[in-house]
Amino acid sequence: MKEDFKENTISTEEIYKGKIIDVKVDTVQLPDGNQSKREIVNHPGAVAVLAVTGEGKIVMVKQYRKPLEKSLLEIPAGKLEKGEDPEHTAIRELEEETGYSSGNLKLINSFYTSPGFADELVYLYLAEDPWKLSDNVEGDDDEFVTVEELSLEEAFRQEEEKIIHDAKTSYALLYAKLFLFPEGD
Amino acid sequence: MKEDFKENTISTEEIYKGKIIDVKVDTVQLPDGNQSKREIVNHPGAVAVLAVTGEGKIVMVKQYRKPLEKSLLEIPAGKLEKGEDPEHTAIRELEEETGYSSGNLKLINSFYTSPGFADELVYLYLAEDPWKLSDNVEGDDDEFVTVEELSLEEAFRQEEEKIIHDAKTSYALLYAKLFLFPEGD
Repeated sequence: MKEDFKENTISTEEIYKGKIIDVKVDTVQLPDGNQSKREIVNHPGAVAVLAVTGEGKIVMVKQYRKPLEKSLLEIPAGKLEKGEDPEHTAIRELEEETGYSSGNLKLINSFYTSPGFADELVYLYLAEDPWKLSDNVEGDDDEFVTVEELSLEEAFRQEEEKIIHDAKTSYALLYAKLFLFPEGD
Repeated sequence: MKEDFKENTISTEEIYKGKIIDVKVDTVQLPDGNQSKREIVNHPGAVAVLAVTGEGKIVMVKQYRKPLEKSLLEIPAGKLEKGEDPEHTAIRELEEETGYSSGNLKLINSFYTSPGFADELVYLYLAEDPWKLSDNVEGDDDEFVTVEELSLEEAFRQEEEKIIHDAKTSYALLYAKLFLFPEGD
């Protein structure tokens, strides 16, 4: 890379160490020699799963999102535990949130969600033909979700109504349209 | 919505008020009556622009992303100023970061980037046939970017190499493949 404009850290102020996120402010040296501040959120990373049933329905979860003070409909997702393999996290979250499991995950893509202020990296997996578990899997005791299974067409309708309003889910829907249902629903 | 599992705020602890983000921890009442903590980042929101030149090239910017300690190649983007109309922000950021302008922006979609811990909402615009400005537009004095113009094919290659590794950009590339270049590059 010719010019990567690396910003060297002059000093770091630890602001917060939380259960999920840490926050710090770095004072950096800019390429022109001046200094600036960078407000940074450190996050453990996350997984998301595009699960498509044998009937061609996308398995989604509705969940209250406190930062938005409203519920969103999203593909199942969850945070990485320390040292956990993302594929294992993906299976665990799929089981806990939806009651489906899969032995056949494929990594679709990974992406940073907000590289301007956070280091959260999301791994997006595809689970085709997931099966229903006979027993409920115990999940996080502070997570309450309802499961909905939608056709791709219905999912795009919910996106127009902003019930689906989430980057990883919107990406997954375009991916499904391009590669899983190229002829339509 | 039958069950939205609303989490009522019992108390709020302000952690940080920054230049770009604010951080707080809410103690909430869960649907089952128990309490939990929610770590929340408030962000002003942002815009991103998929600009496609008359030659069919996507205009991108390479920028050092301090939270990741590396450079990413992304579509031009920037934060909303307080009270600013997102379309106006989009034109301003396109001009400042790339030297292109457009009078003809179309809203493609909007999405929350990390609804589990942040309220950042990104508005994604399409700018077809942007024109080159004759003079440089002064931007933020702590932002250093280089402009690259890529074919869609080349952009997907950079995504495989994780030089493009960003949710809004990955979404924009799928959108371009589906709706702007359906026959390929």
